Amino acid sequence: MFSIGIDFGTNSVRAIVVRCSDGKEFGLGVVDYPSGRQGILLDEGNDLLARQNPRDYLLGLRQSVSQALVEAERDPAFSRDQIVGIGVDTTGSSPLPIDEHNVPLAFDPRFSDNLNAHCWLWRDHTSWQEAEDFTRIAAEHRPHYIAICGSTYSSEWWWAKIWHCLNVAPDVFDAAYSWVELADWIPSILAGKKDAQRIKRGMCAAGHKALYNRKWGGLPDREFLSMLDPKIGALRDRLYDWAQDASSPAGWLCGEWAAEFGLPEGIPIAIGAFDVHYGAIGSGIREGTLVKVIGTSTCDCAMVPVDHGVAEIPGICGIVEGSILPRFYGIEAGQSAVGDLFKWWVEEICDGSKDLHAELTREAQDLKPGQSGLLALDWNNGNRTILVDQRLSGLILGQTLHTSKAEIYRALVEATAFGARAIIERIRENGVKIDRVVCTGGIAEKNPMLMQIYADVTGCVMQVATSSQTCALGAAVAASVMAQFHPSFTVAQEAMTSVREAQYVPIAENRETYDRLYALYRQLHDSFGGLEPSADLTRLMKDLIDLKHAANR
Amino acid sequence: MFSIGIDFGTNSVRAIVVRCSDGKEFGLGVVDYPSGRQGILLDEGNDLLARQNPRDYLLGLRQSVSQALVEAERDPAFSRDQIVGIGVDTTGSSPLPIDEHNVPLAFDPRFSDNLNAHCWLWRDHTSWQEAEDFTRIAAEHRPHYIAICGSTYSSEWWWAKIWHCLNVAPDVFDAAYSWVELADWIPSILAGKKDAQRIKRGMCAAGHKALYNRKWGGLPDREFLSMLDPKIGALRDRLYDWAQDASSPAGWLCGEWAAEFGLPEGIPIAIGAFDVHYGAIGSGIREGTLVKVIGTSTCDCAMVPVDHGVAEIPGICGIVEGSILPRFYGIEAGQSAVGDLFKWWVEEICDGSKDLHAELTREAQDLKPGQSGLLALDWNNGNRTILVDQRLSGLILGQTLHTSKAEIYRALVEATAFGARAIIERIRENGVKIDRVVCTGGIAEKNPMLMQIYADVTGCVMQVATSSQTCALGAAVAASVMAQFHPSFTVAQEAMTSVREAQYVPIAENRETYDRLYALYRQLHDSFGGLEPSADLTRLMKDLIDLKHAANR
Repeated sequence: MFSIGIDFGTNSVRAIVVRCSDGKEFGLGVVDYPSGRQGILLDEGNDLLARQNPRDYLLGLRQSVSQALVEAERDPAFSRDQIVGIGVDTTGSSPLPIDEHNVPLAFDPRFSDNLNAHCWLWRDHTSWQEAEDFTRIAAEHRPHYIAICGSTYSSEWWWAKIWHCLNVAPDVFDAAYSWVELADWIPSILAGKKDAQRIKRGMCAAGHKALYNRKWGGLPDREFLSMLDPKIGALRDRLYDWAQDASSPAGWLCGEWAAEFGLPEGIPIAIGAFDVHYGAIGSGIREGTLVKVIGTSTCDCAMVPVDHGVAEIPGICGIVEGSILPRFYGIEAGQSAVGDLFKWWVEEICDGSKDLHAELTREAQDLKPGQSGLLALDWNNGNRTILVDQRLSGLILGQTLHTSKAEIYRALVEATAFGARAIIERIRENGVKIDRVVCTGGIAEKNPMLMQIYADVTGCVMQVATSSQTCALGAAVAASVMAQFHPSFTVAQEAMTSVREAQYVPIAENRETYDRLYALYRQLHDSFGGLEPSADLTRLMKDLIDLKHAANR
Repeated sequence: MFSIGIDFGTNSVRAIVVRCSDGKEFGLGVVDYPSGRQGILLDEGNDLLARQNPRDYLLGLRQSVSQALVEAERDPAFSRDQIVGIGVDTTGSSPLPIDEHNVPLAFDPRFSDNLNAHCWLWRDHTSWQEAEDFTRIAAEHRPHYIAICGSTYSSEWWWAKIWHCLNVAPDVFDAAYSWVELADWIPSILAGKKDAQRIKRGMCAAGHKALYNRKWGGLPDREFLSMLDPKIGALRDRLYDWAQDASSPAGWLCGEWAAEFGLPEGIPIAIGAFDVHYGAIGSGIREGTLVKVIGTSTCDCAMVPVDHGVAEIPGICGIVEGSILPRFYGIEAGQSAVGDLFKWWVEEICDGSKDLHAELTREAQDLKPGQSGLLALDWNNGNRTILVDQRLSGLILGQTLHTSKAEIYRALVEATAFGARAIIERIRENGVKIDRVVCTGGIAEKNPMLMQIYADVTGCVMQVATSSQTCALGAAVAASVMAQFHPSFTVAQEAMTSVREAQYVPIAENRETYDRLYALYRQLHDSFGGLEPSADLTRLMKDLIDLKHAANR
């Protein structure tokens, strides 16, 4: 038996066909979104804006699954009638406005050129003002709502985006019957849902981004939402009153899509979830494990049993029951720019092709910790955890007239490692055990220098998930559980997921220097991030120069 | 009648032949130093080190003057016998160790491969520890010594360098009979001096860098110097007890060099001075004028009559009687990296050729103030004025994932403009009038964007000196006065120097934004520079984002 996992990423969609008994990948299909710049619709005058064309999703869905099935069929052990289920993960919070028939407004000729009617990609930060206002109003009237997201609502999330749409494009807002996360929309399409009210909503997106919580009766109450705007209050009734965890499916494959793919009609579609959450499952998450999905940005996932009693961690955006696996709180943290930060340096500033990444890595890996004299903040796209503040920016410090681009490249890698350490420390300080770190994503697989730096900076052994498609694999794991091939997620993870033999062990000497550099990073982090408003930075540049001299000795 | 000015720069030497009556340039010779990297001897393991080979100076002297004379001879109005004097300026403080016959130790086969026996280029910062120790010992025992240099002795200067040589290469130190500033050595060579004791020493180098002052009997006293090291105390007797201003010559052209160039033997050689001081004269410096020599670094010169009574300005490295013109205090300030900073960005980071400067300038000039959201510190080579601290480093802040290299290029230009404003404000706060700014140097001539930004940031009209060789022209002015062609420097400057018609006038709208950006720059400057050890930087990134949004509107 086989299942299909489909992963809608930032620039492309990829589908895999895997065997349920051992997780072996039989087929892979990858399709780049054709619209905009690398699949993202941009606005020249506003670099906070990032949207996507929902047509790209349908095209990507159709082509990627077809490719994966064609590839799988090359192996005689596979046939399409052995597919028992489909799982889907996507980026998020990426909401899109739909009409009452579950059709995106972007498909309406009135709005086809209106970016506000398209999907509001996770990375869109246009609603920073609404996020600030949301945080302020909630802090005053419903502090418990935002306590579960680090007491700060983000411009990347559901309500801020929908509210911003109302403020800048009231015609689009008014025309929308409802809004749906991309993670819920794709399964609803596969299940052939033509009624917006009947879309199944996943706990992952609902709980982390829309502040859905059974404790307060689901979504934030209408009175509160009306404080944002009465129209937001009115929208609440057209959204949903129930969100479910991964223990029940989003629906069953409809005839239309079954015919499209040549698959059995009526197989289960797992509930949609954000890429990182299914990635965590595909990486073998369990209690005590931190999964780091290292890509354009990084998402960190941990879990703690519901009876453990951790419900809030300051600066951690989301702690939601059942968001990853049933009966656990899912803890989600993240860094807003990781691969994107290196890409910016190499492609935007150094004007290099992708080959330059490898070239700079070769040069940078010969440097000792501290040797460049540089220190950077990883905030070119704001700080998601632990400051939860989009209105921050990048910083590079310690340059001389001899500083090379490889040195800065390494400093940027180190900055993301320091950011990763801040997250791990914050989670541990709050009583959540982390005794194992599993990394996944292209960077974790391809950049041993980065992985060693992460080990040296955090002091944790870094493992790497075996699969190169852990998000899609996690979705396929969920599909195999929905199809009852496996009796539970635990059993399915045991069978279908694993880590590689090669792992990265911290080097004592490097740890010592990185401990000192991390203390300096925290000086910058805390003073520009507002945690320490009267920091004394007088020694900072000199301390870096001293570390540089020590490294050169 | 004609005079010759010879300017020994960081990477090359240039000589000009000018007519004394109107300053018209008849001939120019330019020679790049052949050794090291662009004329600078470097040490892979220590990027603070910068030395030069004295043989390059002699080769450059010979070839540049010959070229200039050959070019001048194309005009029948000129002949070699009409040359009435020669002036020389050089970088500094650039001391070199010599034997008792005025021969550089670098010419001794025992030391020819020893970088410590070569000339210690102004830019060399290896002696930062000695500079700190010098400052500490002087603060305790002779505070008046360093009060004239902003109470901080620099690693770029004479005593720190000589002391560092003693510490790292005692064999070189012991073999040196004496030390000489390059500015004094070249005139002594032209004058044929074969006795180290007979070299004439200029007030400019002596007063600014060696703390020579008639008030305390010349150089720092032996007891004090012995606190550094008894060997430094002993060296004092082999240096000099008299330094002179520009009112008397360094010597007369010796037969050997007269024959080499085909010039009259015995014409006066003006006293040697640092490039910027002769550059100030060649730019028409007078009371109320600030001359900015904008090159790899920037040097600022102003003057105040000796009877005005300004003797100390905190953070201003040098206020020395007669260092520029007789009967005035010369005030010297500077920025350690300006052209070098842009060059680092374009050539080291962006990997571009020189053409990229023009390309980035074209892009950057279309940006409005504040539009990039960036802010930088111009400290890649430390801060000479007003912090007098080499142990500082560069900083770039405000980057997003869309920040372009042209935006950073402009931010670096702005950073140098903010540094320039800090200097002007400090001088004015101390009662020295500045009602006119004259700029000189390649960047002032070739980069109208930079000049407009300087006008907008400082609020001063920026004028540009007519000559492209103001340093050499100033030396030629001095030579014409020594030859008594002109009765005084004032008359000679009137005749031989001028400013261009085109000037840069501050634009009110830009000034307003730059006033706000300057306030943010000062937050960074004062907190990392140690002036404000408990700065609140919490709002800084957000203020930049607000300015960016305002500029984009």
